[in-house]
Amino acid sequence: MSGSVGVVKTQFFTLKEEFFFESGRVLSSVTVAYETYGKLNEARDNAILVCHALTGNAHAAGFNREDDQRPGWWDSMIGPGKAFDTDKYFVISSNFLGSCFGTTGPSSVDPQTKKRYGLKFPVVTVRDMVKLQKKLIDHLGIEVLHSVAGGSMGGMQALEWGATFPYATKSIIPIAASAAVTPMAIAFNAIAKFAIMKDPNWRGGDYYDDVAPLDGLAIARMAGHITYMSDASFHSKFGRRYATFEGIYDFKGLFEVENYLRYNGYKFTEFYDPNTYLYVLKAMDIFELAYGRNGLKDALRLITSKALFITFTSDFLFPPYQTEELVTLMKEIGNEPRWENIESDYGHDAFLLEFEAQTEIIKNFLSEV
Amino acid sequence: MSGSVGVVKTQFFTLKEEFFFESGRVLSSVTVAYETYGKLNEARDNAILVCHALTGNAHAAGFNREDDQRPGWWDSMIGPGKAFDTDKYFVISSNFLGSCFGTTGPSSVDPQTKKRYGLKFPVVTVRDMVKLQKKLIDHLGIEVLHSVAGGSMGGMQALEWGATFPYATKSIIPIAASAAVTPMAIAFNAIAKFAIMKDPNWRGGDYYDDVAPLDGLAIARMAGHITYMSDASFHSKFGRRYATFEGIYDFKGLFEVENYLRYNGYKFTEFYDPNTYLYVLKAMDIFELAYGRNGLKDALRLITSKALFITFTSDFLFPPYQTEELVTLMKEIGNEPRWENIESDYGHDAFLLEFEAQTEIIKNFLSEV
Repeated sequence: MSGSVGVVKTQFFTLKEEFFFESGRVLSSVTVAYETYGKLNEARDNAILVCHALTGNAHAAGFNREDDQRPGWWDSMIGPGKAFDTDKYFVISSNFLGSCFGTTGPSSVDPQTKKRYGLKFPVVTVRDMVKLQKKLIDHLGIEVLHSVAGGSMGGMQALEWGATFPYATKSIIPIAASAAVTPMAIAFNAIAKFAIMKDPNWRGGDYYDDVAPLDGLAIARMAGHITYMSDASFHSKFGRRYATFEGIYDFKGLFEVENYLRYNGYKFTEFYDPNTYLYVLKAMDIFELAYGRNGLKDALRLITSKALFITFTSDFLFPPYQTEELVTLMKEIGNEPRWENIESDYGHDAFLLEFEAQTEIIKNFLSEV
Repeated sequence: MSGSVGVVKTQFFTLKEEFFFESGRVLSSVTVAYETYGKLNEARDNAILVCHALTGNAHAAGFNREDDQRPGWWDSMIGPGKAFDTDKYFVISSNFLGSCFGTTGPSSVDPQTKKRYGLKFPVVTVRDMVKLQKKLIDHLGIEVLHSVAGGSMGGMQALEWGATFPYATKSIIPIAASAAVTPMAIAFNAIAKFAIMKDPNWRGGDYYDDVAPLDGLAIARMAGHITYMSDASFHSKFGRRYATFEGIYDFKGLFEVENYLRYNGYKFTEFYDPNTYLYVLKAMDIFELAYGRNGLKDALRLITSKALFITFTSDFLFPPYQTEELVTLMKEIGNEPRWENIESDYGHDAFLLEFEAQTEIIKNFLSEV
């Protein structure tokens, strides 16, 4: 039996000290937005951190208001009786550093200038995100997490947790992720970047007092959407259906798939900041678990936590062969990671949709940790 | 032994009558640019038509001037001793209807208004292209072609030739093509379309007296480039190499793959017309061999010419399973098509690069026709 965590308030924690970025840059003030579900036990050892993907936020489960139409982004996985069972675990979800949903990022106001940072914001890395999450965990009085889990860029964070803070988490669950994106993923992100930066309204990132580069951001999101799906899911969701009332020989007539991309592209511009999108794409592109660690094998030696990897057969953004390589390397150095490659046509989106298959695997793993 | 066809002049043929488009629209004057290689024999039965892809032109082989740096787009396949052996065959290559390299298209001047057509140009279909090619063949005094061949959208034309003019060609060779693009291909093309049409310089297609939408066209081309490659070719060509002198923590630092896409995207804007790109994408999207023919099976019944299909294992723009479906259907109705699925990591681009493997297959097929 599974239910909802109900109405949840987003909370905020502001660091008491300055924050040092991997790049060497420093910010004097950083705030992190987070939510928690379930109860921390007396031993303070039942906490699980879930990490969100590229454009996600701290609101992973339940509702922020009684009249909310839609629950948090991983509501099917977090709650009483669910994969991350809030009857057993204290689940923490924070908005990552550099995002635009409450945690300090490029669209935040710089307290020194009273203007938004824009491109003055330091380049953010997955390591920076993980460092800030650790500070939040410290603040919450938790020494060792039961697990760190996430899908896509959330999975990259989970993996990075394993290498940076192996003593602070008993396990990691990277889902639909890898130790570095493929060059093809970088190419997709390049389309998105150029679309935003070539929109005349972008103005070098200084658009906050005027019209934002909405067309560029919409096109960027459309390019992203392609990578979240698969050849098979495009077939089953849209096929070659032409939009009703459009003429095939009309220059502006559209297929349903084009309508869908356009609608979702512009929908995205209603709640996401274009500069932030550039920063999070950059963080995704430059993430390399191996960076500064003498290669991937040595980086993986750092991971002493138990690891469960989940991939999806039709995911071409984070193809399963990447995880297979990781798992093979980890076994060579004596680790015993678990890896489940779930058969799915949903492509990369599967980590948000295939919750039944994931639930069983994750529940079993968490109870064995 | 194989050689070059040498220096070749592009020729032009203007229809004596008006041209009726599949859409029902009519143009009073249509010109087609074409080149020929080799000699038409006395029986006039050794002619092969090659059809170009999305952004190609009539210049398929040899050089247009003595000092040309690069030969035509399929020079590795057309010439003495090559796949399309000009010692044996008379090879014809024409720029398709709606393009911008000599054949009438959106960037041509409307003789009635003395202004460029722009969006007043009728939507062009693959069937329109094939109809115009047939008129060129008639003009050249050829009743029956030995073959019609092409890759990508050129392969769609070859396939359409088989269904529209089965009595006028002994064989067809569709390469890296299909009877209709996948919804995922339409999605990629949508990114390209929106990028051009949202560029403020596009001005509803009326940009010919001013700056053209170059940024939009460059981004459109970048999106196309992704579909021409494969996960494997991105790995081998670029890997995750960061461009030298760029800093990983610099906001504007680029990976080599990003540099490449940008360079080629803007290079493309030096010779291709943005409106034309919109028209040819549309032609690619709306092509359906089955359209108006009572479904695919009945459409395939029309094809009485011998057929050789070639696909490439890593091509995700025209995945081999599409051709497998065609071949299976054709066998069900008593046709005996040949199909070769060439092992290649080059993705869709393989039809331009894997010339050795293709040469043997095509030579054998042509000699058996």
